[in-house]
Amino acid sequence: MDYPNDQAPGAPVRSGIPEHGRIPKYYAVKARIDDLVGELGEGALIPTERDLSERYGVARETVRQALRELVLEGKLRRQGRGTVVAGPKLEQPISLASYTEGVRRQGRTPGRSLVTLDRFPCPEPLAAETGLERGEPVWHLERVLLADEERVGLESTYVAVARVPDLGSGFDPDSSFYAYLRDRGIGFGDADERIETVLATPREALLIGTPPALPMLLIHRVSRDTEGRPLERVRSLYRGDRFSFTTRLRG
Amino acid sequence: MDYPNDQAPGAPVRSGIPEHGRIPKYYAVKARIDDLVGELGEGALIPTERDLSERYGVARETVRQALRELVLEGKLRRQGRGTVVAGPKLEQPISLASYTEGVRRQGRTPGRSLVTLDRFPCPEPLAAETGLERGEPVWHLERVLLADEERVGLESTYVAVARVPDLGSGFDPDSSFYAYLRDRGIGFGDADERIETVLATPREALLIGTPPALPMLLIHRVSRDTEGRPLERVRSLYRGDRFSFTTRLRG
Repeated sequence: MDYPNDQAPGAPVRSGIPEHGRIPKYYAVKARIDDLVGELGEGALIPTERDLSERYGVARETVRQALRELVLEGKLRRQGRGTVVAGPKLEQPISLASYTEGVRRQGRTPGRSLVTLDRFPCPEPLAAETGLERGEPVWHLERVLLADEERVGLESTYVAVARVPDLGSGFDPDSSFYAYLRDRGIGFGDADERIETVLATPREALLIGTPPALPMLLIHRVSRDTEGRPLERVRSLYRGDRFSFTTRLRG
Repeated sequence: MDYPNDQAPGAPVRSGIPEHGRIPKYYAVKARIDDLVGELGEGALIPTERDLSERYGVARETVRQALRELVLEGKLRRQGRGTVVAGPKLEQPISLASYTEGVRRQGRTPGRSLVTLDRFPCPEPLAAETGLERGEPVWHLERVLLADEERVGLESTYVAVARVPDLGSGFDPDSSFYAYLRDRGIGFGDADERIETVLATPREALLIGTPPALPMLLIHRVSRDTEGRPLERVRSLYRGDRFSFTTRLRG
């Protein structure tokens, strides 16, 4: 959990409200709803927009903006026509373990649903990033990531056809691609990874079932096998309101 | 750089536009401005809202929404009354190296500007996270992070007063806290780190000088010294439009 800045006594103001300048009205409402979220606990239905606007004496649009941000941040989620308190974000390790293993470790059921599997000649940018030959056939495997049946992300894997020629026929797209590689004696040597935050495109939002422009965590991976040869390029997009990533660093 | 999905021939649609469903008008405009950004290159001034709305035959509000998202994503940035093409995101290593070292490695000049330095009794949540004693005096050092004079983040460090009693007088807040620890013979053993995306609070937005609700990358760190004793708790907030984080993973 986030360490609450406002638990630090002796400090002027730490609750997210500027020392100088005006407090936006919607933000004051958001802070109060956030307190309510803490009291109610996961899964609880929060009062309607109308109730909240009466309770705090503000316009419904003000309540709506506060709720919108709390949903974007993953503190609340829409459920049917209501809004409920969301659970904590899933914590996924930054490692060469697969998505499947990371989700299982948290007691959730991982799943994947196929969007596209096709092959095309390796374009220049992909060749430059991975060390694959320009023009050589590559697979593009695109899958929606699921946790307990909920759509939580979208993953694109690019891998040389020469490496896994039977991917189109011999691979169950709901299973772990990394387990599939392992079964074929292909091991990971190392990978370069880069994490950033991006907004979901309309296509991505549609596939994942999120509001458009939801902040997402995007992870780029370029991996090599144990001999240092190019293995895969992965672009994994995770709902920013549902995921965080963890690692252990050594001094 | 992101591998452009639309460079993959043989695939139905990969440019961020849904196969099914309508293409939002603002998004089609955004894709065209994004192409323009690629042609113009870093630092170039883009046409005005009015020019763009005439060029694409859409309302100014539509252009405004497209520009707003491109700014949030760090592809464009406001400069005076105009909007210019932004440079690539800074790549900061996920490591126990300091912010200072990471920024220097990219040829930028790091800086820090003090917001608050005060001491208070360690509250329960901080004690639980770090292993510090509840009630023992801790410092809270809060600084704005700078790169080439630009405000790019906000960092809060919590450390026991017993560990660095002279922090209030003997430390230059514009310098590296990690170098300060090193000079006192304090070495890092390990650290747990967690990365997530959050929206800037109004106070944070004011301090960093960003639009409110800009997606940020928030890094939580709890570190221990070489003997495994609690060292510090850090909460680092980085502009999501200016930073990405990189790591090398081993198989």
